[in-house]
Amino acid sequence: MRVAFLGDIVGRAGRKAVTEQLPGLRRQLDLDFVVVNGENAAGGFGITESICRDLFAAGVDAVSGGNHSWDQREALSFIEREPRLLRPVNYPAGTPGRGAAVFEARRGRKILLINVMGRLFMDPLDDPFAAVERELSRHTLGATADFILVDVHAEASSEKMAMSHVLDGRVSLVVGTHTHVPTADAMILEGGTAYQTDAGMCGDYDSVIGVQKAGSILRFTKKLPTERMQPADGPATLCGVFVETDDRTGLARRIEPLRVGGKLKQALPEIALAAE
Amino acid sequence: MRVAFLGDIVGRAGRKAVTEQLPGLRRQLDLDFVVVNGENAAGGFGITESICRDLFAAGVDAVSGGNHSWDQREALSFIEREPRLLRPVNYPAGTPGRGAAVFEARRGRKILLINVMGRLFMDPLDDPFAAVERELSRHTLGATADFILVDVHAEASSEKMAMSHVLDGRVSLVVGTHTHVPTADAMILEGGTAYQTDAGMCGDYDSVIGVQKAGSILRFTKKLPTERMQPADGPATLCGVFVETDDRTGLARRIEPLRVGGKLKQALPEIALAAE
Amino acid sequence: MRVAFLGDIVGRAGRKAVTEQLPGLRRQLDLDFVVVNGENAAGGFGITESICRDLFAAGVDAVSGGNHSWDQREALSFIEREPRLLRPVNYPAGTPGRGAAVFEARRGRKILLINVMGRLFMDPLDDPFAAVERELSRHTLGATADFILVDVHAEASSEKMAMSHVLDGRVSLVVGTHTHVPTADAMILEGGTAYQTDAGMCGDYDSVIGVQKAGSILRFTKKLPTERMQPADGPATLCGVFVETDDRTGLARRIEPLRVGGKLKQALPEIALAAE
Amino acid sequence: MRVAFLGDIVGRAGRKAVTEQLPGLRRQLDLDFVVVNGENAAGGFGITESICRDLFAAGVDAVSGGNHSWDQREALSFIEREPRLLRPVNYPAGTPGRGAAVFEARRGRKILLINVMGRLFMDPLDDPFAAVERELSRHTLGATADFILVDVHAEASSEKMAMSHVLDGRVSLVVGTHTHVPTADAMILEGGTAYQTDAGMCGDYDSVIGVQKAGSILRFTKKLPTERMQPADGPATLCGVFVETDDRTGLARRIEPLRVGGKLKQALPEIALAAE
Ligand SMILES: [Fe+2]
Ligand SMILES: [Fe+2]
Ligand SMILES: [Fe+2]
Ligand SMILES: [Fe+2]
Ligand SMILES: [Fe+2]
Ligand SMILES: [Fe+2]
Ligand SMILES: [Fe+2]
Ligand SMILES: [Fe+2]
Repeated sequence: MRVAFLGDIVGRAGRKAVTEQLPGLRRQLDLDFVVVNGENAAGGFGITESICRDLFAAGVDAVSGGNHSWDQREALSFIEREPRLLRPVNYPAGTPGRGAAVFEARRGRKILLINVMGRLFMDPLDDPFAAVERELSRHTLGATADFILVDVHAEASSEKMAMSHVLDGRVSLVVGTHTHVPTADAMILEGGTAYQTDAGMCGDYDSVIGVQKAGSILRFTKKLPTERMQPADGPATLCGVFVETDDRTGLARRIEPLRVGGKLKQALPEIALAAE
Repeated sequence: MRVAFLGDIVGRAGRKAVTEQLPGLRRQLDLDFVVVNGENAAGGFGITESICRDLFAAGVDAVSGGNHSWDQREALSFIEREPRLLRPVNYPAGTPGRGAAVFEARRGRKILLINVMGRLFMDPLDDPFAAVERELSRHTLGATADFILVDVHAEASSEKMAMSHVLDGRVSLVVGTHTHVPTADAMILEGGTAYQTDAGMCGDYDSVIGVQKAGSILRFTKKLPTERMQPADGPATLCGVFVETDDRTGLARRIEPLRVGGKLKQALPEIALAAE
Repeated sequence: MRVAFLGDIVGRAGRKAVTEQLPGLRRQLDLDFVVVNGENAAGGFGITESICRDLFAAGVDAVSGGNHSWDQREALSFIEREPRLLRPVNYPAGTPGRGAAVFEARRGRKILLINVMGRLFMDPLDDPFAAVERELSRHTLGATADFILVDVHAEASSEKMAMSHVLDGRVSLVVGTHTHVPTADAMILEGGTAYQTDAGMCGDYDSVIGVQKAGSILRFTKKLPTERMQPADGPATLCGVFVETDDRTGLARRIEPLRVGGKLKQALPEIALAAE
Repeated sequence: MRVAFLGDIVGRAGRKAVTEQLPGLRRQLDLDFVVVNGENAAGGFGITESICRDLFAAGVDAVSGGNHSWDQREALSFIEREPRLLRPVNYPAGTPGRGAAVFEARRGRKILLINVMGRLFMDPLDDPFAAVERELSRHTLGATADFILVDVHAEASSEKMAMSHVLDGRVSLVVGTHTHVPTADAMILEGGTAYQTDAGMCGDYDSVIGVQKAGSILRFTKKLPTERMQPADGPATLCGVFVETDDRTGLARRIEPLRVGGKLKQALPEIALAAE
C-alpha cells in the first residue's frame, strides 16, 4: 500500500502548494491514501470547513490536527459532521470529534489513522502512550487494518522517538508534526515500522516556522506584544513522507521524504522520478 | 573557505564515528576548519579533558557545548586552560570559560565561533539575541573574520529560525543543535547566511535521542525514576553540515548535509563523492 | 469531625517539628485524624519506611506525596505494604501504591483521602480533574464518607483554585501543597468545602523553600551545577490547616491555619488557645 | 518610614477595593508611601492611563507591573510620560518605560522602587538577579535611599525566596506578586529586610485567581478555547503588606499583612486597630 503524509499546512501559501502539487503526486506515486496535518491551514491558526473541503477536493483523504485544532471555533462543530477531520486522541473525554478512525482506501483497503499529541513542553493532555494503546487494542495490523498511521504532534524529539519504539512492529508509520521543519531521519525501525521525527510544514520556509519574519523576531527580541502573526506568503514547499508497505504484514518496505517546491532542497521517491 | 560542523556527539558510539570518519572527511572535503558540539560526549553527559583531547587528535579544531556542558564537573576547570572548548555565551557573567572565540584556520584565515543557548523550553540564560549582537559588534564578516559560525543550542525551531534571520548577511553559518535529529532544511538565506535548524547528533539513531530505548520509554510511560540514562552503543551516524563560503565576503556559497555511517540515509557533498 | 493537615515535611528539622508538636496538638485540638504530606521528609527528597514509621508513632494517621514521592527508591516497594502512605492518584495505571484510600478515624468515622498532582508547570501526569472525579464516583460525602480530604500537590494557584471550585460541596477540604509557603486564604467556599491554596511546609523558613540558602542561590545566579541540595536545619515551623466539619453533612464549619514554632508568625485555632 | 504595598489589582472589583479603602488606610497607618501592582487592573489584562490616574487620585504613589504590563497597548506609550508607572526592570534594553525609580515620599524621604520579573515558569526575560544588582549599585539604603522596595513578580516561591536572601540587609522590603494569593510568611530576615512571598491580589477571591470560575474551570477540564476570561466582580479583598522601617538604617522594624474586605480573613496592623 502506498501512503503519503504531509505535515502542517501553514496558511494560503501552504494550501496552494498542496492543492497544486498533490494531484500530480497522487498519480506519480500511485498513492492509495493521503493524510495532511491541517492545524495551521487557516491563516496559520486552525482550519475551517471550507478549507477542509478544498483539501479533500485536491485529493486529501483525511486531515489531522494538533494544539491549533480549535483556533477557528467553527471547527468545534463541523468536526462532528466531518468524519475525515481528526483531532488529537488524547483530548479529554467529551471533546468534539474523534482522534482515531478507520478509513477505506483504494481497492477496499483499511487504514487506521491515529492523531496524538505529546506533552513535553506542550499543554498537558491525557497520556499519549496510553491513548494510542487504547486505539491499537481494537485493531491488528495486517489483519483488521492494512495500514496504521500515527501522527505524533509533539515538540520534543525524545517523545516522538520514544513513541516510535513503543509502537514499532505494530503500526506502519509513526510520523511527527508540530516543529514545522522536516527531519532527515526517515528510517525503518527494527520491527518494521517506518519513522520520521517531523514531516515538516507545507509552507513558505523563508519565515519563522511559516510566520512572517519581522513579527516573530520582535517577540523574541523585544518581549513586547505584537500584532497577530501573519503567515509568510512566498512560494511554499510541500513537505511530507511517502511510505510503501508490504500488503501481507502492513509493515513498511520503504519510507522516503517528499519536498516539492519552494526554498527547500527537493526530494521525491525514485518511483516518481522514473515516472516522469 | 570550507568548514564542517558536527552536531552533539553522544557517548562512545558517537565519539567513535567522529574519530574514525573525520580524518577521511577532512581530506575529501578539503576542510579548513571543523567544529563539533561535545555536550554529550562523555556517556551522554558533558565532556572530559581526555575526550576533548581525543577529538582534537582526530582533526577537530573547536568544541562547542550546551545545557550539558557542566555535567562533568572537571569541565568547570579545564575549560579555563583549553581555549578550543566553548560553552554558551549567554551564561551569566563570571561563568568559567568563553562562549565565543576567534580561531586561526588553515592558511591564516580567521574564524569566529559563537556558541549560544536558546531559552524557549530551556533553563533561562541571558538573552541569546543580545549576547550574539555583543560578540558581533567586535567583528565584521569579510573584514576581521573570514568565517563566522553560530551554534544555536536550542529546543524550539522557531527560536533557531528567528536567530538565523536576525543574523542573515552578517555571519557565514547559523546551525542548530540540541534536538539530536538532523533537519532537512539546509539553505542559504536571502542575505547569504547558510542555515540548518539542527545538525543532528553524532550517535546511534536506534535509540531515543542517543539514549538506550528501554530506560527512556519507561520515563515517558511510567513516570517513575529510572537508573541514569545510558547512551545507545550501536553503530553511530556522524551528522553535520558542510559549508563553503566566498573568500571575499565570508558569505555562504553552499551548504550540504553530512550523514555518514549508522542507520540514517547517507549524505555527502558532491565534491566528496567525486574525490572518491 | 476534626482533622489536621500538615504540609510538606522537609528534612530532619521538619520531622522534628512534627514529632515534637503533633502529640500536643492532637490533644489540644481534639483531633480525629491527621494527614501530613511527606514527599520531602528524607533529607528533602522522598520518604523512607523508617521515617514513615516515626511519623505514625508521633500521631500521624496518613501520609500523602507528590512529585518527590519516589526520590527514595525504597518507597516504590514499601508503599505496597503500607496502606497509610499514598502517592498522587493520577500517576499512570500500574504505578505502585494507591492515590486514594478510605481510613477509619476515631469513633468509627470514615475519611476518604485523595492525593492528586497538578500539571501546570509540572511533569504531566494524567488529568487530575478526571482522576478525582473517578474516586468521588465511589463515595458520597455525608453518606459513605464522613470527611473527604483532597491534597492538591501543584505549582499554580490557578489550578488549585479551579480544583476547589470543581469539588465545592462534594468534599470537606481541598488543600494545596508543593510551594512550601503557607497561604493566608483559608476560607469556606460557597458550597461548604474548606480551602487553602497551600498548607505551607513543615520546615525551616530561614531557607529557600526548606533548602539551605547558599546552594539554592547559586543555582539561580550562576546557572552552574551544584552539590545536592541540603535541607536547612534551623528551628522549623509546623504548618498546616485545622478543619472542623458538620457531622451530618461532612461539610466544613471552620478552617483555621496552624503555624507552630520556627520563624513564622504563630497561628492556632481559638479552641487550642482556650485549652491551654 | 511607613510604607504599604498592595498586590495585583484585578479588574473593577479590585480597583474599587483600593479606591474605597486606601484613603482610610493611609490615615490609620500614617503611611508615607503606597505602591500597588497594577498589571491586571484593566479587566484583568494590563492597565490604562485613566485607571492609573484613578489610582493616584485614591492615594497610590507608584504602580508596578509584570507579565501583563502591556496587555493594554496604550501602556506602551503612556508609560513614557508617566514616571510613576513602572514595568519589570529586566525587560530587554529599549523597552518603553522604566523598571526602577526613586520617588520622594512625605517629609522629603527618598524611596527606591524596583520592579523585577522572575524567570522560572515564566517568559524568560533578562537575569532578574543581575538586573536588581545593577540598580542597587547606584543607591545605598540608609544613605541615598531611605527605603528600598523590590516587587518580585514571579511564579515560583523558590525564586522569590532566593531573591530575598540575596538582597537581605540591602533593601527594606522584598515582596512577591503574580500568584494572586497572599502568603502567611511575613517575616524580617536575618539582615533586616522585610519579606513576604506574595502580597496577594486586590480582587474577588470567590474566583480562580480573580477570574470568573466557570471559564477558568473549562480551560483546565476541557482543554478547549474559551471566551476571554472575565474578572470576578464580587466584593474584593484588598491585600498587601505594611512595613515600618528604622529611619536611621532603612531596615525593617516590622512587617504585617493587610487584608481588608471581601472573603478573606481580615488583617490589619495593631497600630490601625488602635487608631479606630
Ligand atoms: Fe503546526
Ligand atoms: Fe502544533
Ligand atoms: Fe545534546
Ligand atoms: Fe542540549
Ligand atoms: Fe514539597
Ligand atoms: Fe512537590
Ligand atoms: Fe497578576
Ligand atoms: Fe503576573
